[in-house]
Amino acid sequence: MPVFTGALAHALVAPTRYGVALFPDFEAIDIFGPLDALNAVAYSYQINLTLISTTLDPVTAKPQSAAMNLLNSSFGESIVPTHTFDTAPELDVLLIPGGLGTRAPPPQLDPLIAFIKERFPTLKHLITVCTGAGLAARAGVLDGKYATANKKAWASTIAWGPKVRWVAQARWVQDGNVLSIIFINVNESHLNKCFRWSDITIAFIEAVYGNMTATSIANGMEYVRHLNSTDDPFAALNGLTNVNNSTNQK
Amino acid sequence: MPVFTGALAHALVAPTRYGVALFPDFEAIDIFGPLDALNAVAYSYQINLTLISTTLDPVTAKPQSAAMNLLNSSFGESIVPTHTFDTAPELDVLLIPGGLGTRAPPPQLDPLIAFIKERFPTLKHLITVCTGAGLAARAGVLDGKYATANKKAWASTIAWGPKVRWVAQARWVQDGNVLSIIFINVNESHLNKCFRWSDITIAFIEAVYGNMTATSIANGMEYVRHLNSTDDPFAALNGLTNVNNSTNQK
Repeated sequence: MPVFTGALAHALVAPTRYGVALFPDFEAIDIFGPLDALNAVAYSYQINLTLISTTLDPVTAKPQSAAMNLLNSSFGESIVPTHTFDTAPELDVLLIPGGLGTRAPPPQLDPLIAFIKERFPTLKHLITVCTGAGLAARAGVLDGKYATANKKAWASTIAWGPKVRWVAQARWVQDGNVLSIIFINVNESHLNKCFRWSDITIAFIEAVYGNMTATSIANGMEYVRHLNSTDDPFAALNGLTNVNNSTNQK
Repeated sequence: MPVFTGALAHALVAPTRYGVALFPDFEAIDIFGPLDALNAVAYSYQINLTLISTTLDPVTAKPQSAAMNLLNSSFGESIVPTHTFDTAPELDVLLIPGGLGTRAPPPQLDPLIAFIKERFPTLKHLITVCTGAGLAARAGVLDGKYATANKKAWASTIAWGPKVRWVAQARWVQDGNVLSIIFINVNESHLNKCFRWSDITIAFIEAVYGNMTATSIANGMEYVRHLNSTDDPFAALNGLTNVNNSTNQK
């Protein structure tokens, strides 16, 4: 059996089937930040994207709660699902964004959480951004795993996953390896998505497509990467310490 | 007549009606980057957003040219217009994204370019990102104005505006002031949108909503702003110098 190394090896094992779980009042940059970097991957690898929701109706980023829109702004954008949770094809990678919509009252998010639980065993990689980690935690798929989440929403998010090894001092957390499951949970305080998603998306691209691709994209972005996932001043800023025997993951 | 200062003065003169011009194969982050920061503004100011295209059909970010998708990836996302170029309401701010779609063959972009030309005199602010400056140039509205654009697409973009004072050495360019027209053109090389849009969107927010709002959002983003618009190593990297009697704008 031939031994493949470098870019060819990555081409053989790299994920090709990406999915994004949608819900009303998602945080736009949590989706479009990672996708913009992955769009660049699509020039070098044959990959495809499905956008998944409860129905095929457009899904809006607008605040759904009047309490979160006290000035009655009409500011938000809608994107179009390609599949429902019932019709989605098999996936290698599932991305779960955060946003205020993660706090929607039950049973609104039940189909999404059931989908995460159902699909998790067949995924190569699960990526959560911001409070999206809370949705994965509610699906139970992070139990016993290292994960992190939004620091300003820390208490409410970790309450969703009492068996998760939540890492407070982390820009991101990876549990598992490229050939099994990678959990990448962006750790950020409010409005920090646009920058942390860069670190994490490039880290993901490096893990699955190799250093050459990642370096090329980072250089194209003119972005100085944060390579130390524990270089996170915002845990202390929010008075947080690690819990559940968690340790910082490189 | 009372004299208003500070936050109150900004509330009185600040723009409220935002529009984004859409076209197929737009660069997703050119739209969702600025909008994510402006979403935060929507908590503090009553503002609204219209998404404008030729028809009300969803508009995709997917490459439209087979030459730009040699591996036949199916990777892109569609957003839903709220208005057409014929039905769009009056606007204070028009944002024009860049992307490969700016190179679509005529007459595909004619309605968009006509819309820019028609609406420009009634706008308070025009914001272009990346090669979006080329669309504004083709509409003739940048003639005699300072502007900048994507550096890797520099030659093809400035060819669209022979009467524009193109500034090569600039992260962004502002022509006019907050009470008339601001041109903010993001200068970036390929894939740099996600970072330069931050500088420029926060600069815009500072100009129209005041330093307090801009600082709050920048700090929330944990972002160290680039305050010098001419701190741009990528002009030299691409062998570019200023033309048409352009000078760097602060």
